[in-house]
Amino acid sequence: MAYQHILIATDLSAECHRVLRPATQMQSALGCKLSLVHVIEPLGLRFGADVPLDPGILHDQQARQATARLDEVLDDWPTLLPQDCHLRHGQPRAEIHQLARDLGCDLILVGSHGRHGLALLLGSTASDLLSDAPCDVLAINLKKD
Amino acid sequence: MAYQHILIATDLSAECHRVLRPATQMQSALGCKLSLVHVIEPLGLRFGADVPLDPGILHDQQARQATARLDEVLDDWPTLLPQDCHLRHGQPRAEIHQLARDLGCDLILVGSHGRHGLALLLGSTASDLLSDAPCDVLAINLKKD
Repeated sequence: MAYQHILIATDLSAECHRVLRPATQMQSALGCKLSLVHVIEPLGLRFGADVPLDPGILHDQQARQATARLDEVLDDWPTLLPQDCHLRHGQPRAEIHQLARDLGCDLILVGSHGRHGLALLLGSTASDLLSDAPCDVLAINLKKD
Repeated sequence: MAYQHILIATDLSAECHRVLRPATQMQSALGCKLSLVHVIEPLGLRFGADVPLDPGILHDQQARQATARLDEVLDDWPTLLPQDCHLRHGQPRAEIHQLARDLGCDLILVGSHGRHGLALLLGSTASDLLSDAPCDVLAINLKKD
């Protein structure tokens, strides 16, 4: 269990602290490296349709919002370094797995809403991440409290 | 991350040691309680059809095989106590989640083959376990070596 490099995959929502807390605890207990990734999904991908707006403007706006939100999160978790936080554009599973491979991570930490049935088909990043994962995956249950 | 009670969900296959090793490491590092569950799926459930054999005989045979295999596994992992090992009959996700609730487990440890596509639809216990899990789930990647 001596994980060397943990990758936190997060949506940067208000609940992200419930994944960041155990991640930073593991960082200090195991002395491991900590990285974070947030994947910005193109709106066309999320809604499965073209959006009648300039995609370049939307792309920039999404990136600016994510950067601002990431800065807020980093203020609360000082052991997580800005240079170890990655914003990616694309399909979450593919981007997270690729980054985990590129960085040589041995554990992906992700929050799980424990969706089931139709909600699962509509997309659960945690469940999706298990398919073809390059390393272990720890799903933190966000429903239990 | 101070897990108190870990439930190992295993198929008792030859690969189960790759889940038992980190589980017993966590047990000694965290001083937590360790339980194990193996779910015997009724053949009718597994193949989606009736089997033209006495289900009672098959049930007993499956249970005997599982008990014998569990005894072999326990020989290799002495910190795992026989009274903390549970054999259940039924649908894996439902049985594992119910036992985790009954025992008050805060982490389920499971091996993951990282199946995707059609193989995932046909059944991946690890991925399936995330839906509606009563606690955190750590999926140990069995493909990475």
